[in-house]
Amino acid sequence: MNSLKPIDELIELMAKLPGLGPRSARRAVLHLIRKRALLLGPLSEAMAQVATHARECLNCGNVGTSDICDICADEKRATGELCVVEDVSDLWAMERAGVFKGRYHVLGGTLSALDGIRPEDLRIPRLRDRVEAEEITEVILALNATVDGQTTAHYIADQLEGRVRLTSLAQGVPIGGELDYLDDGTISAALRARKDI
Amino acid sequence: MNSLKPIDELIELMAKLPGLGPRSARRAVLHLIRKRALLLGPLSEAMAQVATHARECLNCGNVGTSDICDICADEKRATGELCVVEDVSDLWAMERAGVFKGRYHVLGGTLSALDGIRPEDLRIPRLRDRVEAEEITEVILALNATVDGQTTAHYIADQLEGRVRLTSLAQGVPIGGELDYLDDGTISAALRARKDI
Ligand SMILES: [Zn+2]
Ligand SMILES: [Zn+2]
Repeated sequence: MNSLKPIDELIELMAKLPGLGPRSARRAVLHLIRKRALLLGPLSEAMAQVATHARECLNCGNVGTSDICDICADEKRATGELCVVEDVSDLWAMERAGVFKGRYHVLGGTLSALDGIRPEDLRIPRLRDRVEAEEITEVILALNATVDGQTTAHYIADQLEGRVRLTSLAQGVPIGGELDYLDDGTISAALRARKDI
Repeated sequence: MNSLKPIDELIELMAKLPGLGPRSARRAVLHLIRKRALLLGPLSEAMAQVATHARECLNCGNVGTSDICDICADEKRATGELCVVEDVSDLWAMERAGVFKGRYHVLGGTLSALDGIRPEDLRIPRLRDRVEAEEITEVILALNATVDGQTTAHYIADQLEGRVRLTSLAQGVPIGGELDYLDDGTISAALRARKDI
């Protein structure tokens, strides 16, 4: 019998997390074993909770614990403004900045000829539906300043042209920069200075 | 009601892992939510297993799932050689190198005047007992090549002088280097070329 089996299994699973390799997974697991009462137990329980309850919002793609996320369920956020982001991490970055009061639409990635990602692989068809259904007057394309991000923004702008005001984050987003790496102030400035496409 | 509560709690706990900050914890949690069936569920279960079963070996300080670890329980490893390491991660590094056939003694740190860590705060008293009880003929001091590591090695050498052969890892351990960051070949070479103190 190998008494290390559960520990080895845990290391193997931890090494699959982004940003952790085998060595940092081993260090993390030793840390967890040392703090098993204070950290490992609660972490296991929190993961079980999230595994059971986490789901993607059927409307916007945000994550939460109900079929419709808090933001989509909040009538105060029906401002007519819709902020389109690539990923939930970008939505979180926008929310931390705390200046946008409307709702979001999480694409779930960007178009990519290289990776064969087409509009119907993202939440682009659903975006068109929402613009009508939620009486959207402005779509803010808050996509990353990467080639794929900008290709996607242009595609969406073509699709929605003439139906809503289309804007993009402007000032402050550095070339090649990703929203999730920007500080809140930069995001706020970029939103305030947004420009028509 | 805040539907993000379990997700926020999980991010907060993940951010307490060594090597993860708030941003990488958020990314890890989003990754886990995306892979909740394949990764999050199994990870939660593996953590629960380790939280319930992991313990430190009462004899040597290694981690495992029984009171006496696999190495201490293995009679074939009663070679009379005892390898003293600072931390379990160093023991694991030695085991990956696969050249040492004896048993270990995990100190649980190093002496440090600055941090007020005294011999009785480490497994140093127990080391003296083991040398007698397990008929140890050689103690290999495989401590890190740091100031505190070498201070600790000298203290232990003083304590055990005249009672056993005392050796240290020699060739290949770089100045200021830590065992856990060395490749297996370097560790093997250092063990083979060990020298008397
Ligand atoms: Zn939503
Ligand atoms: Zn042991």
